[in-house]
Amino acid sequence: MRSPQPLHAELLRLLRDEGALSRAELGDRLEVSRRRLLAELERLIATGYAAEAGVATSRGGRRSTLVELNPDLRFAAIDLGVTSIDVAVTNGRLEQVAAYQESADLRSGPQAILRRVDELLAKARAEGAYEQLTAVGIGVPGPVSFRDGVPVSPPIMPGWDRFPVREYLSREHGCPAVVDNDANIMAVGERQAGAAHSVDDFLFVKIGTGIGCGIYQEGNVYRGKDGCAGDIGHIQVDAQGPVCSCGNVGCLEALFSGAALAREATAAAGSRRSPVLAERLTASGTVTAKDVAEGASEGDATCIQLIREGGRHVGGVLAGQVSFANPSMIVIGGGLAQLGHILLAEIRSVVYQRSLPLATRNLPVVLSELGPRAGVTGAAVLASDLAFEQAS
Amino acid sequence: MRSPQPLHAELLRLLRDEGALSRAELGDRLEVSRRRLLAELERLIATGYAAEAGVATSRGGRRSTLVELNPDLRFAAIDLGVTSIDVAVTNGRLEQVAAYQESADLRSGPQAILRRVDELLAKARAEGAYEQLTAVGIGVPGPVSFRDGVPVSPPIMPGWDRFPVREYLSREHGCPAVVDNDANIMAVGERQAGAAHSVDDFLFVKIGTGIGCGIYQEGNVYRGKDGCAGDIGHIQVDAQGPVCSCGNVGCLEALFSGAALAREATAAAGSRRSPVLAERLTASGTVTAKDVAEGASEGDATCIQLIREGGRHVGGVLAGQVSFANPSMIVIGGGLAQLGHILLAEIRSVVYQRSLPLATRNLPVVLSELGPRAGVTGAAVLASDLAFEQAS
Repeated sequence: MRSPQPLHAELLRLLRDEGALSRAELGDRLEVSRRRLLAELERLIATGYAAEAGVATSRGGRRSTLVELNPDLRFAAIDLGVTSIDVAVTNGRLEQVAAYQESADLRSGPQAILRRVDELLAKARAEGAYEQLTAVGIGVPGPVSFRDGVPVSPPIMPGWDRFPVREYLSREHGCPAVVDNDANIMAVGERQAGAAHSVDDFLFVKIGTGIGCGIYQEGNVYRGKDGCAGDIGHIQVDAQGPVCSCGNVGCLEALFSGAALAREATAAAGSRRSPVLAERLTASGTVTAKDVAEGASEGDATCIQLIREGGRHVGGVLAGQVSFANPSMIVIGGGLAQLGHILLAEIRSVVYQRSLPLATRNLPVVLSELGPRAGVTGAAVLASDLAFEQAS
Repeated sequence: MRSPQPLHAELLRLLRDEGALSRAELGDRLEVSRRRLLAELERLIATGYAAEAGVATSRGGRRSTLVELNPDLRFAAIDLGVTSIDVAVTNGRLEQVAAYQESADLRSGPQAILRRVDELLAKARAEGAYEQLTAVGIGVPGPVSFRDGVPVSPPIMPGWDRFPVREYLSREHGCPAVVDNDANIMAVGERQAGAAHSVDDFLFVKIGTGIGCGIYQEGNVYRGKDGCAGDIGHIQVDAQGPVCSCGNVGCLEALFSGAALAREATAAAGSRRSPVLAERLTASGTVTAKDVAEGASEGDATCIQLIREGGRHVGGVLAGQVSFANPSMIVIGGGLAQLGHILLAEIRSVVYQRSLPLATRNLPVVLSELGPRAGVTGAAVLASDLAFEQAS
C-alpha cells in the first residue's frame, strides 16, 4: 500500500496546480491542524519553496494572507525521442519560460545527447530563464529502471544500457533528477493537463518510432516490479511477422510504428499501389508517416488501408490489455497519433469487439490533447513531484 | 490512492493471521497510542469480535493479558466451478471446521446452485460447525462487478447475468457477503497461505474449464474500473482459431482449457494418434484432462504434445501480460495445473523468451501450492476482511 503524501508535498502540489491560496483556503483543503499548517508554511517559506503573496480577500473574520510557490522555482523537462530532443524550463506552476526542440539521433549515445541537452539548458540560463534548477525530469524511449534512474536493455537506444542518466543530470545541474520511460511521462502530462485530466485509471499508448504504454492505476503511474511495466511494443502480434529490433519476431512495434509505416509506405510507393505516395517518393526521395497521413486525408485508398491495418494491430494488443487491466480510458498519443481518426476508429472497433463487454461498455478511446507537448509536460510534473517530496 | 486500514480491521487481521497476542505485543505492532489500543480492544470484545485469552508470559514489567478472536466467529467460503461446488466453514483464524465438495452443473442456474449451497451450509450448522455466520465469501467462474456483487455477462455461466448473488447470500444467512471472480479468490488464497505468501505483485493464472487471472499489485487485488480486470481467457491467440463461448474467435480459452483439451484428446484418441488415450476412450467412453496428464506421465508423445501446445498458448498471452504489468511472480493454478511440470516448463520457456529481459531476469513461474483449496482459502480471507472492516 502506498503511504499517503507527506503534508509539505501535498501543500506544494496544491500551490502548483491552483496558484496562490490563502492560509485559510489551505486549511480548508488539507486535513491538518491550523498550528501544524502554519508551522509547515513558515518552514517552506524559510527554505525557499514558498513565498508570501499579499493579502487575500476577507472572508469575514481575520484577514488571511496568500501563499504561493517561490517565483524563482525552475524545473527542467526533457523528452528524448529516437530522432528528437525536447527541452523546456518551467516555473513552479509548470508554465514554460523557455523551450527548445531539435532533431537528434539518439543512437549517437548518451554522452553526446546529454551534452546537447546541457547546452540547450545553458542557453536557457544565458537567456535568463533560470539561475538554478530546482529539479530535472527526463523521459527516454525505452525501458527504465525507475528506482535506479537508468535505461535497461533499450532495443532502440543502443549504447544507453545502464548509463547513469539520473546521476549525470543531478551532478551536472546540482539538483535532484528523475528518469522515466517516455510513455510514462506522456501519461503524466495528459493526466495533469490533457485528455485524462483527473482520470485515475487509464492507459496512455504512445505510437511513435517505438510503441509503449503508460499505465495509471488508482491515481498513480504503475511501474511494476522493475519499473518497466507498459512495454506493449514487444507483444507478439504475428508469429510469421517481421523481425523486430528486440530480436524477436512479429512484435507490435515491428508491424506498426514510425519506422514500420515508412517501410510499408515506401514499398507501396515503389510498387505504384499508391499514386500519392509514389509522387512523394519521386519528389523528396523518402516517404514518412506524415505522407501517409496526408495521403489518407486526400482519400488515397492505400494510405487509408495502411493506417487501418496498423490500427487493427494496435487494437488487438489493446483489447488484451483492456481485458487484463479494465481501465477507464485509453489515450492514443505519440507521433503516429497524427494519423488521426482513421487510426482511432480502427483501434476502437477492434477493442470494442474483442474485449469483455463489461470492460468496454463505458470506455472512451481518445486522441492525446497535448500532442507533442505531452512529454515535457509530464517530465516537468515528475520533476516538481520529486522536488516537493524532498522539500523536508 | 487507497486509504490505510482502519485500526480495528488491522487489529483483527493480526489476531487472524497470528493467533492470540498480548496487549503489549499488539502495541508493538500497531502504531497507535496505548490508550487508543486498549479502548479499541474493549470495544471489539464488547461487540463479540475479540475475546480475552488468559495471561501472557511476563516481559519484565506489568503482566500483559492475551487477546484472541472470538472463538465463535465463523466464515463461510464458497468456490463455485463450472462443474463443482466447494463449501467450507472456518473459524476466525481461517481453520476449516467443515468442508463439502460435490459435482454440480453451474448452468442449472443461480437459484438451484445457491439453494444447494444453502443446504450444504445448513448441514454444516446441523453438524455443529456454527450457530451464526459472521460473513460469507464466494467466488464464481466469470466476470464479476465487485462493487455490485453480481456476475456480469459471464460466458460460461448462462442464467447468472446480474443475478444478485451478494444480496441473496447476505439475506439468506443474515451477515455481510462478498462476491468475486474465482481467479481473484484463488490469488487471495495463494497470497494468504500458498506460493505467493507475502508477495505484493504477482499474477495468479487459473486454468480450468475457463482461464482467468487474479492480479496482485502493491499488496492488493487489482480489479480495475468495473471489477473485471484479469479476464485473460478471451484474449485472441489465433484469428483462425475455434469459436469461443464468448462469441469471438480464437480466444485463449477456446484453444486451451479443460473443455478444449478434452476435445483435442478425444480427437487424438479417435484417430489413434495416442494409444493411451484410445485405450481410455474405449474403457470409459470419454477422455479428460486427467487422462492427458496420466498419459504424459507414462510418456505418451501425443499427450505431451497437447500439453506443450497449450503451454505455448498460455505462455504467449502471459508474455504480453508480463511486458504490460512487470509482476514479481506468476502462479499457475486451477484444474489444468495437474498437467504439472510439462505445462510449467513450456509456459516458462515462452515467457522468458518473449518478454522484456528486464521483466524476466528474476521472475519465478511456479505451480499453485494450495491446489483445489486455493479458492475456499481465498473466499474465507475475503469474508473475514469484509467482516473486520465492518466491525466498527
